[in-house]
Amino acid sequence: MSTPVDAALGTSPRTSPSTSLGRLAMNQATIPRWSTAEAIEGCTRAGYGAIGLWRDRLEPDGAARAGKLARAAGLAISSLCRGGWFCAPDAAGRRERAADNRRAVDEATELGAAMLVLVCGPAATKDLEAGRREVSDAIAELAEYARPAGVPLAVEPMHPMYCGDRSVVVTLPEALRIARSVVEGGVGVVLDSYHLWWDPDLTASMASAAGNVLGVQLADWLAPPPHPLEGRGMLGDGTIELRRFLELADTTGYTGPVEVEIFNREVWQADPTETLAVVARRYAEHVA
Amino acid sequence: MSTPVDAALGTSPRTSPSTSLGRLAMNQATIPRWSTAEAIEGCTRAGYGAIGLWRDRLEPDGAARAGKLARAAGLAISSLCRGGWFCAPDAAGRRERAADNRRAVDEATELGAAMLVLVCGPAATKDLEAGRREVSDAIAELAEYARPAGVPLAVEPMHPMYCGDRSVVVTLPEALRIARSVVEGGVGVVLDSYHLWWDPDLTASMASAAGNVLGVQLADWLAPPPHPLEGRGMLGDGTIELRRFLELADTTGYTGPVEVEIFNREVWQADPTETLAVVARRYAEHVA
Repeated sequence: MSTPVDAALGTSPRTSPSTSLGRLAMNQATIPRWSTAEAIEGCTRAGYGAIGLWRDRLEPDGAARAGKLARAAGLAISSLCRGGWFCAPDAAGRRERAADNRRAVDEATELGAAMLVLVCGPAATKDLEAGRREVSDAIAELAEYARPAGVPLAVEPMHPMYCGDRSVVVTLPEALRIARSVVEGGVGVVLDSYHLWWDPDLTASMASAAGNVLGVQLADWLAPPPHPLEGRGMLGDGTIELRRFLELADTTGYTGPVEVEIFNREVWQADPTETLAVVARRYAEHVA
Repeated sequence: MSTPVDAALGTSPRTSPSTSLGRLAMNQATIPRWSTAEAIEGCTRAGYGAIGLWRDRLEPDGAARAGKLARAAGLAISSLCRGGWFCAPDAAGRRERAADNRRAVDEATELGAAMLVLVCGPAATKDLEAGRREVSDAIAELAEYARPAGVPLAVEPMHPMYCGDRSVVVTLPEALRIARSVVEGGVGVVLDSYHLWWDPDLTASMASAAGNVLGVQLADWLAPPPHPLEGRGMLGDGTIELRRFLELADTTGYTGPVEVEIFNREVWQADPTETLAVVARRYAEHVA
C-alpha cells in the first residue's frame, strides 16, 4: 500500500513554501508523536523549510530513507542530533564512543544533514578540567573522520544545569575554544537560547563567535523550571528575549535555519500538526 | 519554666569547641526542623563555631534574642539570609523592597551577623540588562545604609538555573563587578559551590575575587538534579570537587567560616542532630 510518504518519494521536490515561514525550522524533539517519515511529511505540509532529526528516531536503515524522503519533499535537514557523550572511564569505553560517533557522521552523510550536534560530556570523574580535555581530544579525532565526509561538527554549549550529567561545555566561550582548537576546521558551535540566555557576557560572546556558528535553536525558559530536562517553554511563554537572542546570533553572520526545539511534556502530548501551527504563530510574534 | 536555651543566656560564653571542626559552620536552612533557638543550642553542642541564620525563621523580636543566645553560647553568626529581591515593576514596589532590606540590615546588626546575603533578582521584565542595572543601583543605595551600621552586604552569584525566578547575577565576575561598583565599600561576594562549580573560568574568577570574599557556602550537586530548588546534595554525594573549590576560595585570602547549606527534602526530614554529625564527617572526608 502506498502511503503519502512513499508517494512523496516519487515526486519531484515541491516548490518550497518556506518563504512564508522564513528561516523557521522544526526540531523533531518537539513533535515526538510522529515518526521520522511523518515528521518530514508534516513539516513540509506546514510550510517549514528545514527539520532537525534525531538518531534515536531513525528506523533501521532509516538515515538513507529519511534523507531520500526529505530531498524528495524539498525539506532541508538542518541538523542531526546527536553525537558526543565522549567521556568514559577507560580506553575501551572511549573507543566504543568514538566508533558510535563515526556511525553518527555516516548517518549525517546519508541524511545530507547540515551539521552533527555534539553533546560534550558528562565527565567520567569529578575532574571537570580533565573531562573538558577529553572532550576536546575526542572532537579533534572525530573531526578527522567528519571533514572528508563534509559533515560539520557542532559543539553545543549546554545550560550549566546539565554540567553534571550531560555536558561539561556550558558556556559559549568554552565551546568556541574547543571548536577553534581544531585548526584544520570542520568544527563550529550551535547556539540555543535555552542554554545561553542567562550569560551576562552574551553580547560579547556572540560577537566573538562570528564565522563559527553552524546553527541556532530556540526554546523559552519557564520560571521556575517545571522539570530540569522536560520543562522547556514554548516560544513566548518564558523569560527569554528571543528576538534579541536571534539578533545577537545574526551578528555572527549566521543566516541559516532557526530550529525550534522544545522538551516539554505538554507540548509532546499535543497534536503535532497543531504544534507546528502554534510554533509558526509564536515565532512570528516573538522572534521574526 | 527555664529551658536549656534560656539557661544558656545566663552563662558566660562556652569555650568554643570549634577547633575540632575547624572552619565548618552550619546554615540554618540545612536543619529546618529546629527553631532558631534550638539551632543555636544544637550547633553549639555539636561543636560548630558559627551558624548562618534566616530572616524568615526569626521569631518576632527574634533578632535581638537570637543574637543574645548566640553570643552567650559563643557561637558566631556567619551570615543572615537574606536580603535582596530588589526589582519591582514600579517605584512603589522598589521602595517597599528597599524598606524591607533596611530592616534586614537592622536585624543583621542586632544579630551581630558577619554579613547580609543578597538575592539579586529576579528581573521585573525580560530585559536582563535592565534587571542587572536595577540590582546594582539598589545595592549601592542599600550600602549607604549598611556601611554606618557595619553590616557587609554579600552579593551571591546564583546558579544560572535561577536566572528566571531568583537572581540575575549568575556568575562570579558579574557579582564582583557589582560589588566593586560601590566604590565607598561595604559590599562583597559570597561563594557557594553549588552555584559556581560549573564555571570553566572558575580558577581565574576566584583569583580575581581576592579581597572581596565575605563568605563561603558548600553543597554538592546531584546529577541529574532531583529538584530545581530542593535537590542540593550532601557533601560527597555529588559531582563537585569540594576540596578544590575551598582551595580556590582560599586563594582569595578568605579565612572565615565555611557554611554548609543544603536544600534537600531528605536532609530536611532527618534528625538535625544526626545531620550535624553527618555534615561534620563528610566535611572531614571531602573538604578539610
